Amino acid sequence: MQEPIAPITWHNGQVEMIDQTRLPGELVFIRPRTVAEMWSAIKKLQVRGAPAIGIAAALGLYLAIKDSRARDRAGFEVELQQAAGYLASARPTAVNLTWALKRVQQAVAAAPASDIASLKEVVLKEALAIRAEDEAMCRAIGENGATLLQDAAAILTHCNAGTLATARYGTALAPVYYLASRGKVLKVFADETRPLLQGARLTAWELHQAGIPVTLITDSMAASVMARGWVQAVVVGADRIAANGDVANKIGTYGVAILAKEHGLPFYVAAPASTFDLSLASGAGIPIEERDAAEVTHFGLRPTAPEGIPVFNPAFDVTPHRYVTAIITEKGIIHPPYSENIARVLGA
Amino acid sequence: MQEPIAPITWHNGQVEMIDQTRLPGELVFIRPRTVAEMWSAIKKLQVRGAPAIGIAAALGLYLAIKDSRARDRAGFEVELQQAAGYLASARPTAVNLTWALKRVQQAVAAAPASDIASLKEVVLKEALAIRAEDEAMCRAIGENGATLLQDAAAILTHCNAGTLATARYGTALAPVYYLASRGKVLKVFADETRPLLQGARLTAWELHQAGIPVTLITDSMAASVMARGWVQAVVVGADRIAANGDVANKIGTYGVAILAKEHGLPFYVAAPASTFDLSLASGAGIPIEERDAAEVTHFGLRPTAPEGIPVFNPAFDVTPHRYVTAIITEKGIIHPPYSENIARVLGA
Repeated sequence: MQEPIAPITWHNGQVEMIDQTRLPGELVFIRPRTVAEMWSAIKKLQVRGAPAIGIAAALGLYLAIKDSRARDRAGFEVELQQAAGYLASARPTAVNLTWALKRVQQAVAAAPASDIASLKEVVLKEALAIRAEDEAMCRAIGENGATLLQDAAAILTHCNAGTLATARYGTALAPVYYLASRGKVLKVFADETRPLLQGARLTAWELHQAGIPVTLITDSMAASVMARGWVQAVVVGADRIAANGDVANKIGTYGVAILAKEHGLPFYVAAPASTFDLSLASGAGIPIEERDAAEVTHFGLRPTAPEGIPVFNPAFDVTPHRYVTAIITEKGIIHPPYSENIARVLGA
Repeated sequence: MQEPIAPITWHNGQVEMIDQTRLPGELVFIRPRTVAEMWSAIKKLQVRGAPAIGIAAALGLYLAIKDSRARDRAGFEVELQQAAGYLASARPTAVNLTWALKRVQQAVAAAPASDIASLKEVVLKEALAIRAEDEAMCRAIGENGATLLQDAAAILTHCNAGTLATARYGTALAPVYYLASRGKVLKVFADETRPLLQGARLTAWELHQAGIPVTLITDSMAASVMARGWVQAVVVGADRIAANGDVANKIGTYGVAILAKEHGLPFYVAAPASTFDLSLASGAGIPIEERDAAEVTHFGLRPTAPEGIPVFNPAFDVTPHRYVTAIITEKGIIHPPYSENIARVLGA
């Protein structure tokens, strides 16, 4: 197996990102040079996956202020604040995005330096630290998750919570990469994940690229794969996790969790500590973004449904914690009861 | 609401069929004039759905012999036999196709008339009788099913078991059309039904056309629709039903059945008596056709997955009878225990 690819790097003084909307057909790199270009890349899902969006947003802040002509620290921080608000508006549901933006702003606020050049350096260093920590975090998630999957021959996953969604390694797929690096190759069944086909375009692509055996199925085939006994666990990522363990993730996750329960399979959620939003008592408080009907009614520009047909197109769903067997974090594995154990393991 | 459209009719001395490959973009009628044109229409899926294929095949037999110059009954029956073999080869696995062909041939064999003109009339009359009986059967399924859905405001369906698949009214959608004709309009959530999108292309189209409010969702959104309390029942069709009530239907049906159970919703299967295969003790004996990987990896000619990626693409799944709340047939509603009640209601 090969090391999984890193989707967003700082290279030769530029942000270099895989344009994930071009996968799986072409491996194209884009180099956003302004905060507007980064906002657009996030909005258009050229970068996606909570941790990768956080890294992109942090680097976007640097793009916003790298040519700042602010005269003093207060002016600089106002620019930073405005850029942060702008970047956050690209994907309102993505908690990692606002987390990364806040973290960079706090680093600037805490910096002893007061000259603008040094503060710009603080922004870049903090953004790169977020990236480096995410890679280390994903590796730790992989190592922790591997202990749960040692007896599995195959897993099923939904959407893409792989290397392409993070600095490297991913969350849901990190245990697969970790085990492969130790010589144990799991097979992966990838739900295609309608409407945007992240499973077909991204998960299948990155696993194939890394030499992991992957079988692509439509979302509607997951139940048949489970009924045939072909997978021993389900592993997915998360966009946001409430204090009681309710998990918001890509639309379709909730259905897969029900199918796993019905087939007696463990349903694992892999996510870094930053995914938890302990201000939310339950998933009921998580806003669910609804997206454009055309994602469902068209393929590319080609209509596949009657014109003007009403569509319900939520981007996420909430899986109640009772369906979640365990949550794999970089700080350890969290088992139920979540209300106690999340706070304990995260040290919150 | 309008009367649902009939996809295949005999009109002004011609077969008139909706070209279903042009839906939902355009409503185009084709008029096959020869058995070869009908063979091609069946082969190219311009007509699909088991009952509609049977009707098309029967009318195809008439096209084959309407200009016959056979000198005697024996010669005529040989021509009929050859045409039947030819038409059956268009969709070798379609049970209704061979059933309809045999029925027309048997009607000719049993006819007292011996002049060729009269035998030609027998072929046409039998083909039209198959069509008329299917319409009456679907209407009866609608009337029977309506009693189960009187308190529902909305249902969810998977694939297309509607008017386009039958002579008229459909099976799963027949109760919706029946209730609408009585002034009670149900709302329908239509799973798009990957990989071939029968829900998006056909179910959404025909309901919209008939003035029934329909909302299109991806298959992965069904669980969210149920969790929100937006539907009060699931109704689907069937390709084959075993003696114990196990149901083979379009891939994804089994998953929807599990989701219905988890949300406390009734899961109804609507199908004519001819769908039951009492020679099969359970669904384990039903062969599951696996189809071309390109259906999953491509949209039209456009690849949406990495080239050469392995795919599992079963056309059907089997829903164990314990998930089936009731089976709606033209002869009545069958409740569990199915092993006893199927035989009783069908009078087998």
